[in-house]
Amino acid sequence: MSILPLRTELIPFLNPYLPASPVKNGKVSVTLTYAQSIDAKISKGPGIRTAISHAETKSMTHYLRYHHDAILVGSGTALADDPGLNCKWVPANNNYTKSFDNSPRPIILDTKQKWSFKGSKMYDLFMAKEGKSPIVIVTKAPTKEEEYVSYLVCPSDPTTGYVDWKELLQRLNNEYGINSVMIEGGANVIQQLLTKPDIVDNLIVTIGSIYLGKSGVGVSPDNSVELTDIDWWKGTTDTIMCARLSS
Amino acid sequence: MSILPLRTELIPFLNPYLPASPVKNGKVSVTLTYAQSIDAKISKGPGIRTAISHAETKSMTHYLRYHHDAILVGSGTALADDPGLNCKWVPANNNYTKSFDNSPRPIILDTKQKWSFKGSKMYDLFMAKEGKSPIVIVTKAPTKEEEYVSYLVCPSDPTTGYVDWKELLQRLNNEYGINSVMIEGGANVIQQLLTKPDIVDNLIVTIGSIYLGKSGVGVSPDNSVELTDIDWWKGTTDTIMCARLSS
Repeated sequence: MSILPLRTELIPFLNPYLPASPVKNGKVSVTLTYAQSIDAKISKGPGIRTAISHAETKSMTHYLRYHHDAILVGSGTALADDPGLNCKWVPANNNYTKSFDNSPRPIILDTKQKWSFKGSKMYDLFMAKEGKSPIVIVTKAPTKEEEYVSYLVCPSDPTTGYVDWKELLQRLNNEYGINSVMIEGGANVIQQLLTKPDIVDNLIVTIGSIYLGKSGVGVSPDNSVELTDIDWWKGTTDTIMCARLSS
Repeated sequence: MSILPLRTELIPFLNPYLPASPVKNGKVSVTLTYAQSIDAKISKGPGIRTAISHAETKSMTHYLRYHHDAILVGSGTALADDPGLNCKWVPANNNYTKSFDNSPRPIILDTKQKWSFKGSKMYDLFMAKEGKSPIVIVTKAPTKEEEYVSYLVCPSDPTTGYVDWKELLQRLNNEYGINSVMIEGGANVIQQLLTKPDIVDNLIVTIGSIYLGKSGVGVSPDNSVELTDIDWWKGTTDTIMCARLSS
């Protein structure tokens, strides 16, 4: 399935929020990005893949993927949405027209080892040379290893039970040469990161003009979070906010 | 306290969403309007008055008030925020420069008879001729009647326990000549009305670029709600969505 052409005014709008190149102070650049309804729901309910954004904002997602070395989602999202996580956007007049070359490396945060590469859309895309093979983040040595998958064992932070994001990013850089990661969900991952200005460099939120209602899966951090460097883009039916977390 | 000048591009942006004049088919025109954070919270917690929107969007609120005969809030909001509910916006070159003339009639939905006019900011504004006296909506004859207050006894809908909005609006029109009502909150009132396209003519939501966090008071309707006639305005730090509820 192809994507709509990128709205040209999105290029200057997004430019200040793309990963720094070269990387600043050895820190992996992290972009937190997701789409929500007006009532801050990212799906109609747990495990329900829900259309929120206009096709033109989906093209933006592929443009952002093009600018990142890797793309990370939680295994809950990988299981519920079965996302391809490849990049379908191609710059005009470039030689890298293959999705394989343009696509970021998928990273699945799978602390409970529930996700399987084989049988996924990512697997089909990898086999068709339209996407890369994943790195799976686990907290203990994997009980079963799949072909083509790289495993990174990263212990969880004993105080929070969550993955230690700083260590994870450092190791992705050291061991896989990853300089920039786009983090797309799910709610749990987003909520953890919204309170971490030392980890998140840029925040890009699409707001679709729909209410998903009380039974939807919401995104709201544990505490209030102030933003800086705010800009808004107005699409046909959606709006997009770019910002940074105040430290 | 004065307000910032209205951003001039807001006038054509808001124009299609202002109450119809004359009233269509005898129906009172209802505008549902509120300000929320990115995570769809209207305050940091129950009863906590919370700054969400930029001063320029506050000027828009006064411009909207100018275009309505009445402004309705629930008694929870009236008690928590002690709002003035008057109109500080004045058109250029008009003779009605007094807030009293430009202000909508405040309506407090006070089914449990908790709110008191005396001691409120509304009372002070009324005494200073900068605002009108309120109509208080009760479901049973008031136990105590205050000076200057008009009481409207409107039974609640036996199936939902909520006020019967159709009857309430019809009576406001018949008994007080009110043709347009702006409804500003709180969460309970907004949530009820988001699922009533037969009542709500226009929806105007300001989204401030802040997260208020999990303990905030959220707005999300019982079911998903689709919107039509969507337009967005981009402010300095906020965005505003104008839309209509799909029927």
